[in-house]
Amino acid sequence: MPERIVWLNGAYLPKSEAQVSIFDRGLLFSDAVYEGFGILDGRIVDFGVHMARLRRSLGALGIPEPMDEAGFQGVLTRLIAENEVAEGFLYLHITRGVADRDYLPADGLTPTVFAFTQAHPAPLADRPAVPVSLTTHPDWRWKRRDIKTSNLLGQVLAKRAAADAGSDEALMIGEDGYVTEGGCTSFFAVKNRVILARPVTDDILNGVTRRAMLAVAGREGYRIEYRPITLPEALDADEAFLTGASSYIEPVARIDGQRIGTSVPGPVTTHLRAEYLRRVRMS
Amino acid sequence: MPERIVWLNGAYLPKSEAQVSIFDRGLLFSDAVYEGFGILDGRIVDFGVHMARLRRSLGALGIPEPMDEAGFQGVLTRLIAENEVAEGFLYLHITRGVADRDYLPADGLTPTVFAFTQAHPAPLADRPAVPVSLTTHPDWRWKRRDIKTSNLLGQVLAKRAAADAGSDEALMIGEDGYVTEGGCTSFFAVKNRVILARPVTDDILNGVTRRAMLAVAGREGYRIEYRPITLPEALDADEAFLTGASSYIEPVARIDGQRIGTSVPGPVTTHLRAEYLRRVRMS
Repeated sequence: MPERIVWLNGAYLPKSEAQVSIFDRGLLFSDAVYEGFGILDGRIVDFGVHMARLRRSLGALGIPEPMDEAGFQGVLTRLIAENEVAEGFLYLHITRGVADRDYLPADGLTPTVFAFTQAHPAPLADRPAVPVSLTTHPDWRWKRRDIKTSNLLGQVLAKRAAADAGSDEALMIGEDGYVTEGGCTSFFAVKNRVILARPVTDDILNGVTRRAMLAVAGREGYRIEYRPITLPEALDADEAFLTGASSYIEPVARIDGQRIGTSVPGPVTTHLRAEYLRRVRMS
Repeated sequence: MPERIVWLNGAYLPKSEAQVSIFDRGLLFSDAVYEGFGILDGRIVDFGVHMARLRRSLGALGIPEPMDEAGFQGVLTRLIAENEVAEGFLYLHITRGVADRDYLPADGLTPTVFAFTQAHPAPLADRPAVPVSLTTHPDWRWKRRDIKTSNLLGQVLAKRAAADAGSDEALMIGEDGYVTEGGCTSFFAVKNRVILARPVTDDILNGVTRRAMLAVAGREGYRIEYRPITLPEALDADEAFLTGASSYIEPVARIDGQRIGTSVPGPVTTHLRAEYLRRVRMS
């Protein structure tokens, strides 16, 4: 199999040749933002919504936009074609650039930009949803979770603890006892056919798939209650599910070993997943 | 001037040749720890204490130690000699290694290790202390501030806001209203010749220079009160100062534009700085 082709600062390169300076601020300070897109049927899912969030993240850090949306679309589309990815994940990363180490970023740095694809080893969209188990972990992340940055060590540690406990994903719980998010997914509970969704503030990431799912749910006539829920409420739910860019909608089977609901996937989760995928493919 | 020599994974290289993969977990997840050492009179200050903290950071993340202390001492000493640094900063960074992007770190990755020096453009130790001004900023950092990781965006944003306000350094304030730390320094107040020091918990970094300064203060007969202080208490102090590995002990002149104490540097700060530097040079 030929080496994967990645994109770095304007060049398409074999993966092993894509390198950045040890003085990149992304490496020294995590002064960087990213987006992770789903690839389905060889196409980027929700491209425009991801790009709008990327621009928001760049703006929050004061990193200039290295390229316009059409430019990125050209690069990313070519990357998918070069690597012949039908279903999988597409990653785009932008750092503030390279400079001698100083917390204060110098003006006028040229951002470092790179992108790569990951093919799903087993495509997910055409198979039944696979239930996942969650293990709770304190949400150790910083306060600006609304910005999609590479400061991901809190998530790494939570997901590793979950894996050590035999689970598929972490469920992060804030100091106030309320559920925030999964380790790299948004979390939702369903009670009496009402979808319980945490309101979007600085405390969570405004997930692209979250938004698309909620739009689908609204169109399908579900009531959505926007409020944080506690762990006991989550455990008492009829159904729970996660959303994520390349995992779509995943039913939650267990939290900390405790079974959620009576059937997994539940009927609301199954309906939303099918309808979400149908609409992505129609678009 | 010849290019600076840096060290990367066992090789001494010109700075421009030191590059890491875009798949380095340090870049993608900030899955990395570091140490910043002071260099004074061509020697590393408090080498053993920094290395003990580095081992603690590595242990907290489960990253294996890539080399023993004597090995690092050899590398770092040679780096200082190669670059002829008399006074300045020495930086050592260890990431978990390179792997395809997955939050869960694979076992057995080889850590990426690099180090570089920065000469102080104007040596500080033999000149009078320069008073610094601080601007407060909410402490946005994650909950494990005791681990010295590259998840530094909270500090970058705080320090940039301070610089935008015309200040030299940020003073970070927790949600509970208590002072935590400077943007890249430890903060202390002095009231009635008592040194007020925040106790070491997960909320702050256990600063190496902080510890050395507190030891000096103890030997010099100062009383040290270990408790968090509020911003009004800091503003009402007789003196305030910062500690940092390559900035030693810096007197604080102003916080949010308000003058601290009556003379800057105050007598306790001046005494501690002189005694700290004397002991470093004696050791």
